[in-house]
Amino acid sequence: PRYQRGDDSRVTLGYRAINSGMTLAVSMEHRLTGAEDYDQQTEIDGDYAKHVFRTHAQAGQTVSLTKLVSYHSSSQVPARELADRCHRTLDRARDEGIERQFREQSEWLESFWDRSDVEVGADDATQQAIRFNLFHLAQAAARAERNGIPAKGVTAAGYDGHYFWDTEIYVVPFFVYTSPHIARNALRFRYTMLPAARQRAAELAQRGALFPWRTINGEEASAYYAAGTAQYHIDADIAYAVSKYVKATGDEEFLAREGIDILVETARMWADLGFWRGDGPDKSFRIHGVTGPDEYTTVVNDNVYTNVMARYNLRAAVRGVENLERRWPEEHARMVARLGLEEHELEEWSSAADHMAVLWDETLGIHPQDALFDQRELWDLENTPAEKRPLLLHFHPLVIYRFQVLKQADVVMALFLQGNEFSDEEKRADFEYYDPITTGDSTLSAVVQSIIAAEVGYHELAYDYFLAGLFVDLANLHHNTSDGMHIASTGGVWAALVNGFAGMREYDGVVQFDPRLPVVWEHMTFKITVRHTRLRVTLRHDSIEFQVEEGGGVSLEVRGERVTVSGESPVTVPLDGQGPRIAGAPDPHAFHGTVRDDGTVMTASIPSMIDDEEIPT
Amino acid sequence: PRYQRGDDSRVTLGYRAINSGMTLAVSMEHRLTGAEDYDQQTEIDGDYAKHVFRTHAQAGQTVSLTKLVSYHSSSQVPARELADRCHRTLDRARDEGIERQFREQSEWLESFWDRSDVEVGADDATQQAIRFNLFHLAQAAARAERNGIPAKGVTAAGYDGHYFWDTEIYVVPFFVYTSPHIARNALRFRYTMLPAARQRAAELAQRGALFPWRTINGEEASAYYAAGTAQYHIDADIAYAVSKYVKATGDEEFLAREGIDILVETARMWADLGFWRGDGPDKSFRIHGVTGPDEYTTVVNDNVYTNVMARYNLRAAVRGVENLERRWPEEHARMVARLGLEEHELEEWSSAADHMAVLWDETLGIHPQDALFDQRELWDLENTPAEKRPLLLHFHPLVIYRFQVLKQADVVMALFLQGNEFSDEEKRADFEYYDPITTGDSTLSAVVQSIIAAEVGYHELAYDYFLAGLFVDLANLHHNTSDGMHIASTGGVWAALVNGFAGMREYDGVVQFDPRLPVVWEHMTFKITVRHTRLRVTLRHDSIEFQVEEGGGVSLEVRGERVTVSGESPVTVPLDGQGPRIAGAPDPHAFHGTVRDDGTVMTASIPSMIDDEEIPT
Repeated sequence: PRYQRGDDSRVTLGYRAINSGMTLAVSMEHRLTGAEDYDQQTEIDGDYAKHVFRTHAQAGQTVSLTKLVSYHSSSQVPARELADRCHRTLDRARDEGIERQFREQSEWLESFWDRSDVEVGADDATQQAIRFNLFHLAQAAARAERNGIPAKGVTAAGYDGHYFWDTEIYVVPFFVYTSPHIARNALRFRYTMLPAARQRAAELAQRGALFPWRTINGEEASAYYAAGTAQYHIDADIAYAVSKYVKATGDEEFLAREGIDILVETARMWADLGFWRGDGPDKSFRIHGVTGPDEYTTVVNDNVYTNVMARYNLRAAVRGVENLERRWPEEHARMVARLGLEEHELEEWSSAADHMAVLWDETLGIHPQDALFDQRELWDLENTPAEKRPLLLHFHPLVIYRFQVLKQADVVMALFLQGNEFSDEEKRADFEYYDPITTGDSTLSAVVQSIIAAEVGYHELAYDYFLAGLFVDLANLHHNTSDGMHIASTGGVWAALVNGFAGMREYDGVVQFDPRLPVVWEHMTFKITVRHTRLRVTLRHDSIEFQVEEGGGVSLEVRGERVTVSGESPVTVPLDGQGPRIAGAPDPHAFHGTVRDDGTVMTASIPSMIDDEEIPT
Repeated sequence: PRYQRGDDSRVTLGYRAINSGMTLAVSMEHRLTGAEDYDQQTEIDGDYAKHVFRTHAQAGQTVSLTKLVSYHSSSQVPARELADRCHRTLDRARDEGIERQFREQSEWLESFWDRSDVEVGADDATQQAIRFNLFHLAQAAARAERNGIPAKGVTAAGYDGHYFWDTEIYVVPFFVYTSPHIARNALRFRYTMLPAARQRAAELAQRGALFPWRTINGEEASAYYAAGTAQYHIDADIAYAVSKYVKATGDEEFLAREGIDILVETARMWADLGFWRGDGPDKSFRIHGVTGPDEYTTVVNDNVYTNVMARYNLRAAVRGVENLERRWPEEHARMVARLGLEEHELEEWSSAADHMAVLWDETLGIHPQDALFDQRELWDLENTPAEKRPLLLHFHPLVIYRFQVLKQADVVMALFLQGNEFSDEEKRADFEYYDPITTGDSTLSAVVQSIIAAEVGYHELAYDYFLAGLFVDLANLHHNTSDGMHIASTGGVWAALVNGFAGMREYDGVVQFDPRLPVVWEHMTFKITVRHTRLRVTLRHDSIEFQVEEGGGVSLEVRGERVTVSGESPVTVPLDGQGPRIAGAPDPHAFHGTVRDDGTVMTASIPSMIDDEEIPT
């Protein structure tokens, strides 16, 4: 606590966080109308302020209390100065009148729903739950101009308000296609963390920048590197979001001034972290000692997710620099000077990308999560009692890491984000292998599994996973909603709808659809904004319809066919079904007993579960 | 601080450690003689006590101050009670007189040197340094009846007084062969930690017992599992020391009452931690997700040191149980009931030991430190600047772990402790590979490298490593002697002398010698006690001589020939040289450019070393 001031008309508190030095002030005032007689009392203490009104109201009498609250925060400005800003905000709100506040918020929200609503032909509960999730995205990001979108939004103190890669992969894509200005703010926020990421890279003996696993001020706030800093993929996730944003919006100014620095510095990190193996046609670029999204297997070699995302990152940097040179030569020159970029670096990045190792296991016919993944035994999830879940709360990491068991989608996440790099057969084989050994102990998992289940045809499972994401907080499915909303999952719910059921992807700048409408829904209508054109998309079992709501039109693809949408008339594309339809779920025993490459047999087991009573004393 | 009391005659302070609850009291009193007139002043405070005498002494006048200090410590007894014990000790010392204290200590030390001295035909500095190291072993262990031998002995606060596996592998063997009663005390101290080790095993989902990496009260005190708890080999190290002790002393009573519990519970841990791979003749017992002694590579599969030591542990447990059943049937029955031992467990342990995987790399012709070791690039130690060492202070673990670089001997340690399991050719090949990539950033390293360098013939290098161990604290070679003596290294100095230069080993209960006397020494004389017989051993360039000093005699081997020593006459065995003699050191470049099994080439490099000035802001 740094500041406490106030009287009967207004009270203000100011704080500074001990470690980060970040500051916060909050001010409130009240107006009581309709009470003829009342007394009031104000109490202010270090971390405490209270304003009590007392009146004797009569039945039928209307007493109104108008409460105005203003918050200001900063990474540096003293709390006292923030307190002044709070006062000015309250002054303005009082002057303008409360009705104006209501009206502005209402307009803001109407505009949000116009751009973002997803309507489904289903029961009210499902529809309400969808909007509950979208609303939380709006709330978490509404004032993210300079402050980013934390993992719990503004709902509770879980994760100490920290930012994770969830933002870029689960939340930013929603805004890219519905509220690009919010996506830009979120990405600019990451840009402001670039100096700290450069410092962190140097600490890890890497060139370029290394973004932290969790942070409040740009510095890595996790001391547990195995599931934290070792997630080098975060660099690629951020580069991915930058690239998605620029392609969907055409905002090359952002690319030229800020985005390019992120792309270049992350590409540099990959080029330095990886190394070359072999010569001639066999040579490959390897990345060792990293952790993928799945935190139940850490510090491994050639994690497939990491490698394919790093490849995307390297190529995005090359494309970005080349594009800049061609179209914004002055900005290009400034960037080259600013970052000391050398010509040979682009060649290195291209070469590393072209030769990136993407492991393939011939025996299992899948992409192994990492170089040693198939050497592990399978964890017998079916026979793991419910009271031993989630695994991370009941087993030491050293135990979990020895098994083929996933906290969350990893290869399956790569199948989604880098879908054009995998064949349909590979996607199905990978999904059928990983789905049964994925615990879903992270809420980041269900929504991604829903998307790929839908794509490969497990439509019932896709819908189940969608519901698991949809109700994760409404039904408190992970028993920790009191720590705050899982904002990444709310973004994932939108992705499960639009990328999963509507089958939307973007590769090479072209937005495309290959729908998988759930059997139990009649239709689904949603909005997307692509290069300043807002479309209303209506998906039915036999067609998909595009209608321009704003802007000049856009060219899309539906199942490989080019579709141009412009003007006032909707464009309807007939659909021959909703892709493959496979009942049930992959068989959890399918790989038990498989003979591995080295001649050994895969078995499933559970580590010893020892009760205290069993231990001799 | 829990207790402060005193007056001009005596002051006493008592303490309790916050976390462990362990208690300590210290009491002192003084007697001033020869001063006719003096005044005294006593100050006592929470963590502070002072007794000041003032006198005006004349030239030629003798003033004597006799200071008596008594310490008592406990894991539970309140500090106030310990203070009473301190007083009783001081009372007794005062009653008996100070001369008796001096005499008893002198006798104790004379007896220690009679049992333990190592005399070399070399310069005084070397001889003094050897005795300095041996003295510190005596001091660290003298009062270890119930309190164990901490990593820093009683010399300073480094490592917070904690115990490590150093004791069992570096220190206990010295006492086994020179002061068996002290070795027994140290092992009994471990035995008292068995309940905590069982608890720890359960936390790690393992059956049996898992001893901690560092501890003060039996509980694991390290939160960094990668280089801490993952060192499962500690179980085998303790079982190894127990087994060595019993074989050298014949103390089957200790085995029957206490040692057997350690052997059984550690064997259980291995049987549960490892798992079976393959079928028929190819089947092997694997141990995944562990860290060997080398802390620059962590959480790996089938670490060779761990596997061969686990094999020894499993067999020692089988032998121990069988021996007990045959010779101490009542104690055997009690143990079976106490530990719930089942017949099939012995079969499992034997089978796991017989099929233990011990990896071999055909391409490099060495035992790889672990399953993925050869996949790492070599760290270019030659070109790593001195100011970037030790590596652990200048590079993040994630960086170090990606390279073939060792903090300390690992496979080479196995070559020493399990020497009969490796051929001479394997030992030389392994040593020549690992020696150049070992930093010696741990003081546990040099002494072991000295022993194996001596064995395989690098006699100059063996001597250099011996000196590095000999002077580690005298010359403050690791720049941290202010944190306390490296007691493990002092034990390692004795091992480098007796196991290294004199080439002593014990396999299957037989003590054997294959000497490697340094060229620069004329001779070397040391004492060992085997099964109650104390021998004086004199090694010369052309002979080794054994003389019984105490006890009835013992049977030994010198280079494969049986030698029986008894009676009063020395037995002299002529020696044809001192084993192979290879000049210089293994070539650090020998393996650069080697084509690996997967067709790739081994290169040596250094991670980026980025200065702050290089980072764009």
